[in-house]
Amino acid sequence: MSANVTVLGLGAMGTALAGAFLSAGHRTTVWNRTAGRADALVAKGAAEAAGPAEGLAASELVVVCLATYGTVREVLDPVADGLAGRTLVNLTSGTPEEARETAAWAAAHGAAYLDGGIMTTPPGIGDPGFMLLYSGERAVFDAHREVLAALGDPVHLGADAGLASLYDTALLGLMWAALTGWLHGAALAGADGGTTATAFTEVAGRWMKAVGVFMNTYAPQVDAGRYPGDDATLDVHAAAVEHLVHASEARGIASGLPEVFRELTRRGVEAGHGRDSWARLVEFVRGEVRA
Amino acid sequence: MSANVTVLGLGAMGTALAGAFLSAGHRTTVWNRTAGRADALVAKGAAEAAGPAEGLAASELVVVCLATYGTVREVLDPVADGLAGRTLVNLTSGTPEEARETAAWAAAHGAAYLDGGIMTTPPGIGDPGFMLLYSGERAVFDAHREVLAALGDPVHLGADAGLASLYDTALLGLMWAALTGWLHGAALAGADGGTTATAFTEVAGRWMKAVGVFMNTYAPQVDAGRYPGDDATLDVHAAAVEHLVHASEARGIASGLPEVFRELTRRGVEAGHGRDSWARLVEFVRGEVRA
Ligand SMILES: NC(=O)c1ccc[n+]([C@@H]2O[C@H](COP(=O)([O-])OP(=O)(O)OC[C@H]3O[C@@H](n4cnc5c(N)ncnc54)[C@H](OP(=O)(O)O)[C@@H]3O)[C@@H](O)[C@H]2O)c1
Ligand SMILES: NC(=O)c1ccc[n+]([C@@H]2O[C@H](COP(=O)([O-])OP(=O)(O)OC[C@H]3O[C@@H](n4cnc5c(N)ncnc54)[C@H](OP(=O)(O)O)[C@@H]3O)[C@@H](O)[C@H]2O)c1
Repeated sequence: MSANVTVLGLGAMGTALAGAFLSAGHRTTVWNRTAGRADALVAKGAAEAAGPAEGLAASELVVVCLATYGTVREVLDPVADGLAGRTLVNLTSGTPEEARETAAWAAAHGAAYLDGGIMTTPPGIGDPGFMLLYSGERAVFDAHREVLAALGDPVHLGADAGLASLYDTALLGLMWAALTGWLHGAALAGADGGTTATAFTEVAGRWMKAVGVFMNTYAPQVDAGRYPGDDATLDVHAAAVEHLVHASEARGIASGLPEVFRELTRRGVEAGHGRDSWARLVEFVRGEVRA
Repeated sequence: MSANVTVLGLGAMGTALAGAFLSAGHRTTVWNRTAGRADALVAKGAAEAAGPAEGLAASELVVVCLATYGTVREVLDPVADGLAGRTLVNLTSGTPEEARETAAWAAAHGAAYLDGGIMTTPPGIGDPGFMLLYSGERAVFDAHREVLAALGDPVHLGADAGLASLYDTALLGLMWAALTGWLHGAALAGADGGTTATAFTEVAGRWMKAVGVFMNTYAPQVDAGRYPGDDATLDVHAAAVEHLVHASEARGIASGLPEVFRELTRRGVEAGHGRDSWARLVEFVRGEVRA
């Protein structure tokens, strides 16, 4: 099925999005503030709109991917009359609060609205192994799911427009945590000479599968509010965290992470949860327990 | 091939190790300081040694898994004469420095030595999907590889006895980072109501595969010392980190992580690396660049 789709914003990400729509055979209209960004896409068959109003007019489905939500409003407010009857899919990153506000604004202008979070970088766009998260009315998602699938695996999270940003933020936090932990590990493993980041990452990649198993073990504990430490206790973690602190200090490696783990486990143990699992710490992260 | 193997230390982990050796059909001798810990294993066919000396006498291959390296020396120093001709596999957690010191001590007593890092919790022992890391002479590893495979997938890292602890520490750091990032994410996704940790973890598990792809992309950048930001730049990360900071603060969620990411990206951007990838931050983690 070939559809009409417009992409507003041709930064690194918007360019990848438009390219994927074109590759999937959709009639793709593009626009970008700075001229010239559309040239390669036009050569691949895209139509270039002279301005955002022309972009809105060209397709019922309009995907916007700009720097910030503020930019989205800056670009669309002057042409908001053209939103009526359109479906606006906003793949710009922001907070849940901004997403909800933008959903209300779109509704006021007669547009259906989906907010989205792109869970990959531009080179991953078009690969169904990566997720794009969407929130907003299920019927709107269902109507466009097939076209949106050109970008990656579309995952619908719920009707609350803020959910995609909320998940996006939560998952990016998880990514930065893992990438910082990985840099710290690569630096540590490489410090005594001989171990490349590539060699470390081969082992780290296998290890992350085990860590995924631990998450699956602990998730129901978090939901149940019961944290039996029958695999590994906070006492055992707290002792091992000291090895990380010492091994890192001895090698001049400093990411800020070991202090975070030390503080969290210390609080858990001091509150009397030394025999519980790591999952108990969610209560401290949630701020239910104050220092 | 059925071998003789001794396990010294029957804590949560030692008990799992001995159980896996028994399940694989090895003649297993066990010992623990506190009586009674061996009973279930004896019922499954293990022999119980009256003391560590008797444990050393029973098998050429001796696996030790005690609380700390200090405990290992406390238990084995008084009976160190019995180490001659034995292969000591030390699966106790500690620092690379402790591992190297213990290797030298074992050599002085005529024992071959492997240091190990167990990359799972007791329920995972015996599952070839999990790794046990070993360091020490390759020939010693090769001689016992098949028997050690009863515990999980044996991975040899190199001759330096400190490597298993170094990797263990580095990988645990990565695990705590991921588990803390996951708790933060679950708390965040759950804060607006309706999202269980289990639902979040389903999406997070898929996302971790993408994060693994990013690590594989960035590892050669770290090794080459060149960090092209053609997928996502530190400037883009820095802006998105602010969303995490704000979304977390607005919900009272505090793990200590967002401040770490904000500080790291700030330093990278201020040093003029805003167009580089996340991998550039390894230079700050390594402490090559001071604040
Ligand atoms: N890159 C990634 O890996 C990635 C991943 C997931 C989500 N995202 C999100 O996708 C969005 C775009 O990211 P990107 O990587 O494409 O960034 P980018 O390469 O910096 O592109 C920014 C885009 O915003 C436009 N823009 C900025 N200010 C504007 C203004 N005042 N008026 C009109 N247009 C304006 C730029 O137009 P000009 O060309 O005229 O400057 C450009 O099209 C961001 O919200 C980002 O967080 C990116
Ligand atoms: N649990 C895990 O998930 C995990 C994962 C990887 C690595 N490890 C490492 O494996 C090692 C053991 O962990 P674990 O979970 O089995 O801990 P554990 O259940 O607390 O067991 C500790 C063991 O050390 C013995 N011990 C302590 N002090 C002693 C002393 N002074 N003299 C003689 N024996 C002493 C204990 O004997 P008693 O019964 O007499 O107290 C017990 O056998 C640790 O280094 C840990 O970091 C554990």
